[in-house]
Amino acid sequence: MQVDNKNYQSIWLDESDRAVVKVIDQKKLPFFFEIMELRSVEDVYCAIKDMTLRGAPLIGAAGAFGIYLATLEINSFTNIREHLSNAARYLISSRPTAVNLSWAVNRVMDNLNFDLSNDSLPERALAAASDICEQEKENCRNIGIHGLTLIEEISIKKKGQPVNILTHCNAGWLACVDFGTVTAPVYFAHDKGIPVHVWVDETRPLNQGARLTAWELGKYGVPYTLIPDNTGGHIMQHGMVDLVLVGSDRTSCKGDVANKVGTYLKALAAFDNNIPFYSALPSTSIDFSISDGLSEIIVEERDQEEVKNITGLYNGEILQVRICPENTIAANYGFDVTPARLITGLITEKGICRATEKDIKKLFSDKFN
Amino acid sequence: MQVDNKNYQSIWLDESDRAVVKVIDQKKLPFFFEIMELRSVEDVYCAIKDMTLRGAPLIGAAGAFGIYLATLEINSFTNIREHLSNAARYLISSRPTAVNLSWAVNRVMDNLNFDLSNDSLPERALAAASDICEQEKENCRNIGIHGLTLIEEISIKKKGQPVNILTHCNAGWLACVDFGTVTAPVYFAHDKGIPVHVWVDETRPLNQGARLTAWELGKYGVPYTLIPDNTGGHIMQHGMVDLVLVGSDRTSCKGDVANKVGTYLKALAAFDNNIPFYSALPSTSIDFSISDGLSEIIVEERDQEEVKNITGLYNGEILQVRICPENTIAANYGFDVTPARLITGLITEKGICRATEKDIKKLFSDKFN
Repeated sequence: MQVDNKNYQSIWLDESDRAVVKVIDQKKLPFFFEIMELRSVEDVYCAIKDMTLRGAPLIGAAGAFGIYLATLEINSFTNIREHLSNAARYLISSRPTAVNLSWAVNRVMDNLNFDLSNDSLPERALAAASDICEQEKENCRNIGIHGLTLIEEISIKKKGQPVNILTHCNAGWLACVDFGTVTAPVYFAHDKGIPVHVWVDETRPLNQGARLTAWELGKYGVPYTLIPDNTGGHIMQHGMVDLVLVGSDRTSCKGDVANKVGTYLKALAAFDNNIPFYSALPSTSIDFSISDGLSEIIVEERDQEEVKNITGLYNGEILQVRICPENTIAANYGFDVTPARLITGLITEKGICRATEKDIKKLFSDKFN
Repeated sequence: MQVDNKNYQSIWLDESDRAVVKVIDQKKLPFFFEIMELRSVEDVYCAIKDMTLRGAPLIGAAGAFGIYLATLEINSFTNIREHLSNAARYLISSRPTAVNLSWAVNRVMDNLNFDLSNDSLPERALAAASDICEQEKENCRNIGIHGLTLIEEISIKKKGQPVNILTHCNAGWLACVDFGTVTAPVYFAHDKGIPVHVWVDETRPLNQGARLTAWELGKYGVPYTLIPDNTGGHIMQHGMVDLVLVGSDRTSCKGDVANKVGTYLKALAAFDNNIPFYSALPSTSIDFSISDGLSEIIVEERDQEEVKNITGLYNGEILQVRICPENTIAANYGFDVTPARLITGLITEKGICRATEKDIKKLFSDKFN
């Protein structure tokens, strides 16, 4: 997407130095727009771990590039199979919840033929990583096309009054190489002249909504209003939300959606107020091996310091302030699971379906064993 | 309650200078414990408005002391009736949602007999304000006694395992002159040796949970864990919450509860997971003139800067950092209304009742017309 008239993805290979993968430093947004260079498996691991990079499709792409960088670390003394397997395991361990990460890393690994000469490994890894990026972009574009129909329908019903969409966290282009999952339908509607307005959940503790979604929408010229995570219920009760659109970090084959913690609360409120609640996701986020999301999806627990402190801008500088008594103990669960029964539908690259095993199977019959 | 071995209320008359009302500056907590002096109606108005003082019972008490301070402003040129009426209107306008404020101010006004000499007005106003404080303390003590039975029952069922209580915002002694509404049962259980643990919702935007409830519980030695407002649903899904206890800023005669924004989301999650959800409130928070809370209770909209910025401690100093792009528009609704159908019961000074008009009437038949 365009940032100040220049086209960007959230991750790309530096064509002038092909040992470098470049990413937008999402920890510095919206205060500073900075590009970060990743030159090693360790760099990729740390960038995913500390959430310089985040978003299920993006960390998948980053994991894929991580294997590419691992192939560049091979020399004549390297036990190649061991080196790459270790790199794969290490990269996958950086975040546990999103399925895209292990999917992408394993896909690049499958594409490496260990019988060939070492020279061809980087090429093969890079080709596979680039493929994954292109596939994620294409997925998002198609999610945008399908999701747009929902917004159009509401817009017609509202006779052109702005369609009010509530979103949680950031499932925008920053999270997804390009376009975004939740944002693609929004951007396409905006491009088509359909009036849209987005309620942006702050999304504590790391404020991906306030920092990233607000920044993205602002750069694209989409009207938005920032709200505390507590506010969604009230505005749904008062008819101020037409549609809830969220992403997904892992979706079970029965349609349970693991997404940023707090998503479940918004799903409950949407359900209680008869507001359509959709999760937009590429099929790379579906874990066909998992049936019951609530008991089977591992929810990441992160550092409590992320809860006890908040990052923001003060006098042109990014600072972290402590918001609670010094000796406070805090809990930091990264995700929650919204049961399929609360979800109106899933917007995928192959179309919109209900959040049921039967309907998911219809679209993705090849993925079921 | 005790703070570092000294007994405090959240508001009191300075006995050494009876033209001064003293309060704990809640904007500086938990970073600094400072006492603030209120010497005029304007001081009281500002302290309520900027939330140096907050909590439904406390702002009622402060409003009452505000009328007392207004009586001290009377001189021989004052049109007493006009002066006091203006003061009352002005004080009531400082926060629109809590019913206690107008109730307390009007009660003091009713106690002033304008036919008497001016000299007796301050005495009468002070007596009425002190009465209100004593009544709120007694209400909280009784709420504590009744609420304790709920905690005891759960503790017995759990065979002495800690009772996990989730709360939102601060309905502690800071909010209520003394004891607190939500915290009284918790403190009494703790005093009795019943193991309790409190999940403290951060409560954005002003973080009354992270700042005030965490501080109160810590000072009292009650174990607690701070969580982002997004987390409650996840922990309820996973059996980590036994009881949800919240306060109320205004309760309709049918049992709808207006409380800090986000309360409704926790009520939905409690309902979805069969977890008892109680609101603890003195009858001074019940507005017997209101039937349907959702359509009739005015929800305060506050300054958007409270959403765009967060206050915390940095290098020993209280700072405000901006958490979103500079030109962001934010919405700041102070409260939401939890419909009675989601509420297991109300804990009042007269006992526990279901959130229905019939049951509320049984306890407070004198208040119904």
